[in-house]
Amino acid sequence: MDTNDAFQIHLQKLPRQDERAIETIYTLGNGHFGVRASNPLQGKSSHYKGQPGMFVNGFYDLTELSYGENYSYYAQNSQTICQLPDPRYIIFELDGKRSDETPFDVKLVDKNLDMRTGVLLEIFDIKSPTNKQFRLTLQSFASHADKHVFVVKYSVSALNFTGALTVIKQANYIDQPIQNTGDDMRAAQPNMALDRTFIKSKIPTMLISTRKSQLALIVGQQALSDNPMQVAVIDDLPCHSKTFDLTQGLTQSFSFAYAVSYPHPLLQTTLVESEFAETTEKQLANKSFKDLLTASTAKVDQFWQNSDVDLQGDATLAQGIRFNLFHLYQAAGTDGQTSIAAKGLTGPGYEGHYFWDAEMFMLPFFIYTQPEMAKQLLIYRFNKLPQAQQRAREMAVQSGVMFPWRTINGEEASSYFPAGTAQVHINADIAYAVDTYVRVTGDMDFLTNYGYEMIVKTARFWLSYGHWATDSAHAGKFVIDDVTGPDEYTAMVNNNYYTNRMAQNNLSIAVKYSKLLQHNHPEKLVALDVTQDEIDHFDYAADEMYLPFDRTLKIKMQDDVSTSKPVWPIDTTPRNQFPLLLHFHPLTIYHYQVNKQADTVMTDFLFPKDQDAEQLQRDFSYYEAITVHDSSLSRAIFGILAHRLHRASDAYRYFMETVMMDLTNSQGNTADGVHAANMGSTWLSLIYGFAGLGLEKQTFNLSPELPEAWTSLRFRINFHGRNLEITITQSAVSVKLMAGRALKFYVHHQEVEVTKKSLVNVFLKTN
Amino acid sequence: MDTNDAFQIHLQKLPRQDERAIETIYTLGNGHFGVRASNPLQGKSSHYKGQPGMFVNGFYDLTELSYGENYSYYAQNSQTICQLPDPRYIIFELDGKRSDETPFDVKLVDKNLDMRTGVLLEIFDIKSPTNKQFRLTLQSFASHADKHVFVVKYSVSALNFTGALTVIKQANYIDQPIQNTGDDMRAAQPNMALDRTFIKSKIPTMLISTRKSQLALIVGQQALSDNPMQVAVIDDLPCHSKTFDLTQGLTQSFSFAYAVSYPHPLLQTTLVESEFAETTEKQLANKSFKDLLTASTAKVDQFWQNSDVDLQGDATLAQGIRFNLFHLYQAAGTDGQTSIAAKGLTGPGYEGHYFWDAEMFMLPFFIYTQPEMAKQLLIYRFNKLPQAQQRAREMAVQSGVMFPWRTINGEEASSYFPAGTAQVHINADIAYAVDTYVRVTGDMDFLTNYGYEMIVKTARFWLSYGHWATDSAHAGKFVIDDVTGPDEYTAMVNNNYYTNRMAQNNLSIAVKYSKLLQHNHPEKLVALDVTQDEIDHFDYAADEMYLPFDRTLKIKMQDDVSTSKPVWPIDTTPRNQFPLLLHFHPLTIYHYQVNKQADTVMTDFLFPKDQDAEQLQRDFSYYEAITVHDSSLSRAIFGILAHRLHRASDAYRYFMETVMMDLTNSQGNTADGVHAANMGSTWLSLIYGFAGLGLEKQTFNLSPELPEAWTSLRFRINFHGRNLEITITQSAVSVKLMAGRALKFYVHHQEVEVTKKSLVNVFLKTN
Repeated sequence: MDTNDAFQIHLQKLPRQDERAIETIYTLGNGHFGVRASNPLQGKSSHYKGQPGMFVNGFYDLTELSYGENYSYYAQNSQTICQLPDPRYIIFELDGKRSDETPFDVKLVDKNLDMRTGVLLEIFDIKSPTNKQFRLTLQSFASHADKHVFVVKYSVSALNFTGALTVIKQANYIDQPIQNTGDDMRAAQPNMALDRTFIKSKIPTMLISTRKSQLALIVGQQALSDNPMQVAVIDDLPCHSKTFDLTQGLTQSFSFAYAVSYPHPLLQTTLVESEFAETTEKQLANKSFKDLLTASTAKVDQFWQNSDVDLQGDATLAQGIRFNLFHLYQAAGTDGQTSIAAKGLTGPGYEGHYFWDAEMFMLPFFIYTQPEMAKQLLIYRFNKLPQAQQRAREMAVQSGVMFPWRTINGEEASSYFPAGTAQVHINADIAYAVDTYVRVTGDMDFLTNYGYEMIVKTARFWLSYGHWATDSAHAGKFVIDDVTGPDEYTAMVNNNYYTNRMAQNNLSIAVKYSKLLQHNHPEKLVALDVTQDEIDHFDYAADEMYLPFDRTLKIKMQDDVSTSKPVWPIDTTPRNQFPLLLHFHPLTIYHYQVNKQADTVMTDFLFPKDQDAEQLQRDFSYYEAITVHDSSLSRAIFGILAHRLHRASDAYRYFMETVMMDLTNSQGNTADGVHAANMGSTWLSLIYGFAGLGLEKQTFNLSPELPEAWTSLRFRINFHGRNLEITITQSAVSVKLMAGRALKFYVHHQEVEVTKKSLVNVFLKTN
Repeated sequence: MDTNDAFQIHLQKLPRQDERAIETIYTLGNGHFGVRASNPLQGKSSHYKGQPGMFVNGFYDLTELSYGENYSYYAQNSQTICQLPDPRYIIFELDGKRSDETPFDVKLVDKNLDMRTGVLLEIFDIKSPTNKQFRLTLQSFASHADKHVFVVKYSVSALNFTGALTVIKQANYIDQPIQNTGDDMRAAQPNMALDRTFIKSKIPTMLISTRKSQLALIVGQQALSDNPMQVAVIDDLPCHSKTFDLTQGLTQSFSFAYAVSYPHPLLQTTLVESEFAETTEKQLANKSFKDLLTASTAKVDQFWQNSDVDLQGDATLAQGIRFNLFHLYQAAGTDGQTSIAAKGLTGPGYEGHYFWDAEMFMLPFFIYTQPEMAKQLLIYRFNKLPQAQQRAREMAVQSGVMFPWRTINGEEASSYFPAGTAQVHINADIAYAVDTYVRVTGDMDFLTNYGYEMIVKTARFWLSYGHWATDSAHAGKFVIDDVTGPDEYTAMVNNNYYTNRMAQNNLSIAVKYSKLLQHNHPEKLVALDVTQDEIDHFDYAADEMYLPFDRTLKIKMQDDVSTSKPVWPIDTTPRNQFPLLLHFHPLTIYHYQVNKQADTVMTDFLFPKDQDAEQLQRDFSYYEAITVHDSSLSRAIFGILAHRLHRASDAYRYFMETVMMDLTNSQGNTADGVHAANMGSTWLSLIYGFAGLGLEKQTFNLSPELPEAWTSLRFRINFHGRNLEITITQSAVSVKLMAGRALKFYVHHQEVEVTKKSLVNVFLKTN
């Protein structure tokens, strides 16, 4: 297999899976929007069971949440990402039959995604009701050069006839079903509607607005210069249309670009739409498919240059890794107004919400390889501080902010608070991500202008939400009651280890950066009302944070009482009863020791210096035995810890179970969208796991150990302005400084230095 | 005030309150149905803001519950009692104007309820659109002799004219709004519909059915013999109609009886409706208002004979007490298929659901004074054992039954499980009630045929839901995790004291009655698969039940960690922020020590021998300070305990705050229905509190202490077939054996004996 093959996702090489999962896998996106790879004649094709659509990051409607008992300050609305009409949609007319009126038979022949260019190639064989057959080839990409643009080239060649074929491309796709289903417990229909269509600056355009969130979005369609096409009005709808004289064996092509605006308040539409059409026409009118592709590919090249992970020794795995990284790239918002949804922009699952996994499972990849993107993702949270402050006050938390558990617009959208709002750890997760970003990039401007405020305001939350204990079990300690940790099979507990340890970190870094900025930017402390007294409080609460520990088992306790409950009979529970939350009442599940996912061991992962190997081994063994991995966030963490424990085969097994999750549809719900956090976990597993990357003071350490099957692992990281290429083999680590000043770092905790344009090689002991 | 006055509820003597609260207060019922005392011309009266309606015990529709996140085995339907058309409704026609088409002005002049007879007298002055005035007087009662019958006598007298007045009484009241709102967090609209109307056996009849629960109810209307009226069909609707020639100053009267069937499955309607009409005609056709009243009054007399509590020294209070007892009588189902709803049959509040308060707050009154009614209320629970067993299995509880927290049909209807299904104490509450019934009545047949099975199956629940602890804090003890106690401001805790103590009692009485029946009815044990091994398990778990205790504060702890949380700042919380649950998120409330109602101190109340006076004093003081009494079930318990602590003024204050709750609408929500459990609390406060009644082995003790303001307190109780009249004054207790064999009992724990037809006097020490 040549290098190029490792960047191809070829349908013929994937396991057979349902059409909707295929659509998800081949979704194209660029952080602003995602377009599912559906049948372009969909809707009227008699056998079609797919779910076509486009998702625009941050374009959602509000849907009223309903409760049997509706208490104060419950989230009143969910936010549901809108499933927009599919821009790939096309109508053919042959022998007077239109494909939107009479079903044409569409057979998918092949698909291939070239991740080097971002171009998806698809081949369909189509038969008209009059039995004329032609082949439709699509080449499409979401532009990474101009985030507003989606490009499709259609090529048609007659297979068994010579004659006229008319193409109609409507601007409004009105025939398309607009549907929205989720794969979790929620189902909501946004009240989105096509507001109107019009032609402006020769661009057939549609305005889509939402009923309740009062957002609007404009999508315009431009025929490209490859084969210019006139604007027409057919059935009162603006469109492009052309009749081709097909000759059997010859191919005719035509291309379109779609411009997708940013979502904006409906009230501003008049202003936005004029400018939008003019700009679109100016940018696109004289461009060819190739022009636009060249610009986009240059950006994709840059992405791979910094973000590729090149695994040698297992071609399938190497391909799977790149697939996951490419999807992360396609999912991440870059405008500071959006983040990464749990399903990226590939499907309607989880309603398009952002969760803690954006910061804890996906952001590290961007921090180390695309720091500018990471910064924008953190700025999204910064921009939502006002909503988080409002939420804290609603929850009677008098100081600081309280970030929502699930959200698009910054307001809480969780309708089941014991596994939603009660997961207050998200405050500390965001602070942890800010700290990691600053430690890795050294970006002091970000710290000063954005990060410090986020850290201080989340730290304040803990002082208000927690309290100083007076009871004998916790006397003198700072405790945090009534929270839910990452493990959603245990809810509403006191002193969840993960939460407390993360809160402790939140408070500690608030102290650290307060001290730093007291010297460099004292005005920031004044602006935020940070006093020495408050810094001392942060410090004291961090020092005295209660961390539950079972003295008999000598393990970190998940919470104050976790180890005293009976253990769920995992081995005797039939396989079809998993995931448990789909088969048992939450109260039944809470009644037992059983973990949906890594919880306490997340702290072993995040704070490697907290414990020695023996402690890690005990924690790992205990929690591995009670964890059912019903969450896709679980296995990677156990895998990374297995690596640290030199349990190579366990580490490899956990990794293998995660990296191919969506390509093989192993969870069975890829149809609803990719598992973006799991994709982030792939990178965590490789870099934090097998490469053993860990932060040290002002530098980092590598403690690599490759699975036997692998020949080498090569990747790049950015660190404080340097760009380093790291290659790990079974016997050595070599590090090359591609850009930036010399750097001292550690390999297996032994200091080495890499200097400009040099290569440092460290030979590893072989066991 | 003469004796008779103490049985009158005269509108002029009540504080001014809104029309809907007045309708609730004057609701007439008989356990089968309740009819609100609304404007009989309602609906079309321009100023009318009332909520007319009839509620039939057990006649409900299912309404789908909606959840933002819908988990396994969540209650999928609520059960909502149907608000049926008002049988009092009447149409007048005067000068060609019909009151259902053109508003007639209706002014309420007066109301009076005579609780001796159960007759409600109401006077309305009515003005037609043509300015003709007449007075309408209603006399109505719900028959206690024939539970199916509601009777109204209308009297009209012209005030300023002489002329014709036509009366139309439709059988279907189709003009009436059917509405349903609740005073708690829930609002649901049943899909009830008027199915059809017809005339059968000269009875204009309507069939009302529900859409989802598929129940049907038949209501027929019969003109009574006082002033017979012909059946007519007007506007295609069966009705009675008559034109009266009114002469100014003369009164004309006419009476109707309404027969209200039991709810039955819709499929059986054809069978039921034929028999219903025939029976109704036979029973009612030749009866007069007086005939029916005489029969009913005889039953009401019997009620008062056994159930009256005669307080001398405070006439207002005496009247308030009787009002509460009368409403309990009106609310209690008597057919073994129904129980007592939280609002009785007076309003739509809490959707007409039965809760634990039926057993814990209302049943004692019936056990001691109307044991046959008490038995039927317990048989209702017995009849719902199959549903409770099904629910246990759904919740993965392998043995025993799990009664629903709120229900009509025996299935769980709670949509917020942390304050619903998690209140598993209801199992033990029902067992406690069975035990109390058996101990007071000595009814061994009930024990053998019903009670024992309920006790065994609830006891089994605890063995399955709880577990033997292995952690050091509880080692060797039986613990019960993840429950919510009566206090709904604390949820999902481990070892709630109330729950554990009640579960212990449940297990103990299972042992006690198993041992008893092993001798008397060994076949019952065989039938229920009760083995000696299981009895030993019950015994052992009861012995080793963990009861949390704070060794520093020396108080019973509400749960394992209750005393370690910060105390809610009750004093500095503005009054308009209560009840807290309407102003704060549940997670905010759970975060603090704050009690909605008596929780741990309920065990001090229910198990007086558990603690000495010092312990009681400590528990009382601690929990009184953190209890906000946002539940109407709270104050009475604190009042009874204050009595035991000889804190006379506290006991009196708590009592005064509860007894007048509905007559003064002190909670502000009497409009939605009476607070039936609070009414039961009145009796508990008087008899368990001021009279100091407590059970002893095969007998009872009285430790009375009357408030200074009271001259005497006289009441009756049944005990093991005896009927005793007890009179307490400031200086003496006198007990008269009205029926049954001699009995030894205690006064202030000193034994006395009352023999047949004798009177025993015990003089009390005055302090």
